[in-house]
Amino acid sequence: MIRGYVVADFLSKQNIRTINRTADEYGYQLEFFANEQEAAGHTSDAEVLYSYKAELIESAPGLKWCHSPFAGAEKLLATGVFDSGEVILTNSSGAYGRAISEYIIMAALMLMKQIPEYRKITDERRWVQELPTRSICGSKIAIIGTGDIGRNAAARFSALGAASVIGFNRSGRKPEYFDKVYRLSEFEDRIGDIDVLVMCVPGTQETNNLLNADRIAALPAKAFVINVGRGTTIDQNALIAALDEERIAGASLDVVVPEPLPPEHPLWTAKNCIITPHMSGDMSLPYTVDITVDIFCENMRRYAAGGELINRVDPASGY
Amino acid sequence: MIRGYVVADFLSKQNIRTINRTADEYGYQLEFFANEQEAAGHTSDAEVLYSYKAELIESAPGLKWCHSPFAGAEKLLATGVFDSGEVILTNSSGAYGRAISEYIIMAALMLMKQIPEYRKITDERRWVQELPTRSICGSKIAIIGTGDIGRNAAARFSALGAASVIGFNRSGRKPEYFDKVYRLSEFEDRIGDIDVLVMCVPGTQETNNLLNADRIAALPAKAFVINVGRGTTIDQNALIAALDEERIAGASLDVVVPEPLPPEHPLWTAKNCIITPHMSGDMSLPYTVDITVDIFCENMRRYAAGGELINRVDPASGY
Repeated sequence: MIRGYVVADFLSKQNIRTINRTADEYGYQLEFFANEQEAAGHTSDAEVLYSYKAELIESAPGLKWCHSPFAGAEKLLATGVFDSGEVILTNSSGAYGRAISEYIIMAALMLMKQIPEYRKITDERRWVQELPTRSICGSKIAIIGTGDIGRNAAARFSALGAASVIGFNRSGRKPEYFDKVYRLSEFEDRIGDIDVLVMCVPGTQETNNLLNADRIAALPAKAFVINVGRGTTIDQNALIAALDEERIAGASLDVVVPEPLPPEHPLWTAKNCIITPHMSGDMSLPYTVDITVDIFCENMRRYAAGGELINRVDPASGY
Repeated sequence: MIRGYVVADFLSKQNIRTINRTADEYGYQLEFFANEQEAAGHTSDAEVLYSYKAELIESAPGLKWCHSPFAGAEKLLATGVFDSGEVILTNSSGAYGRAISEYIIMAALMLMKQIPEYRKITDERRWVQELPTRSICGSKIAIIGTGDIGRNAAARFSALGAASVIGFNRSGRKPEYFDKVYRLSEFEDRIGDIDVLVMCVPGTQETNNLLNADRIAALPAKAFVINVGRGTTIDQNALIAALDEERIAGASLDVVVPEPLPPEHPLWTAKNCIITPHMSGDMSLPYTVDITVDIFCENMRRYAAGGELINRVDPASGY
């Protein structure tokens, strides 16, 4: 029997049944805890963990595989447990495309329809119309990061009539739904007429300050910036300056540095900046949880059979 | 020469060139005014008007045709000028599908992603996550009104993965993009499992209080209501009660009664209710203005040739 623990408060009864069925079939002895407080002290003999809590990983010396229900892995990698490659980390990349791409479309439309400005107007119970609005139809979209989230966003922008959707990644390889994909080294040359720039890259050493002051300066004044990846990928001070000086048209940030964002942080009051508390990809959408469970179950089968796991995180690249 | 006046502040130079070219070709002598103040006293010899101002219509005794840049016609019809059918009113129905359907998608996503609640949280600089969210993917959508706006909204919901998009209209005839269309008499039988109800019908005698207390009571608790047509089509008191008692999940209203909505009106504080100041279909989107100009120019050709005009408003039905 393979000893494992599932620590999560967002699983439905159906999710738990699915996991238990897989455990029975492939020889796992699993225990469930709703959170790390309940689990504390009870999981030290874990060979397998379904959790996103560094504490639990660090307190299981016999751990061989941890599956995270999230996509971002930086906190788990920071434990150092996975550095040698002997302990495997898998993530749930692929579970978030639906929820987060809908957030991206919503954010683009809120910026295009001037919702932050109309919100101020209606908060004061005024009735003003005819602020300049824009449309996804005919707009030029750029997406940094062409993984599951980027692809889902590209598909939706195209379906809604965007004139073009280009992507940026490390390889320049073009996945489905993008019109063209460029290497990031070409960013400044390709970004000068963009309406919306979407950032959906993981937080790694390589992506740190990826949207730096120079790249922000290369954006046109009409550009909106949307970030759903990690706050570390944007030079926030440069972004605030660009917003306040109207060198870009607005931003919608679901991820920031630090989180929670302190009440006095200048991002809160930057011009035409929508901030949401890292909720775009949370576990409140059943579909998201179902996919993370599917990935876990597929890997339970593979792990029991001694096979290669899917969604394995590379500690060197960070995703 | 046909004497005409164009009264509008939203036309681009390109729009004016297009209109002037058509006027030259078909024998019109046109004059342009930016608004009704500038036009006042100068348009009494109008045979043709491009305007949405009742005052100008009433002060042109020789008027034979008025084209309104808007879709809603109730204020112009209220002049009585068009009752006999001797003076023709045409509208710009067809110009608003793009702008307003994007508003509808935005509103649906804002309600599904709990933006009103997250807004309260971030206004207080708190950091709360994991409010229950929903997705357009797999949702059941109903749209009352299957004209240009309804069709555009149906197309977008389908493209974004809605499980079904049904429509309601007077005839039960099914236009493109809808899965099924029913007569309004079937409303209560078809609405019990709907996620989003969109209202995009004109304000006429027949549509007055169309979404009345009984029909609101037939909606499931998960339903969001979005109104982009006219405020008169909803029993507002019944809607406020349903929102506050959580018999429906939320609403987004771009049209209300009266407009402007008085600061003390209870709609402002109804539970989970987004209000915007009738801006979803305004003239700020160049595409919208271009289409209204195209319709006007097509009708200038037809009018000069003695043909049937398109987009003619029927004073009896009100649209």
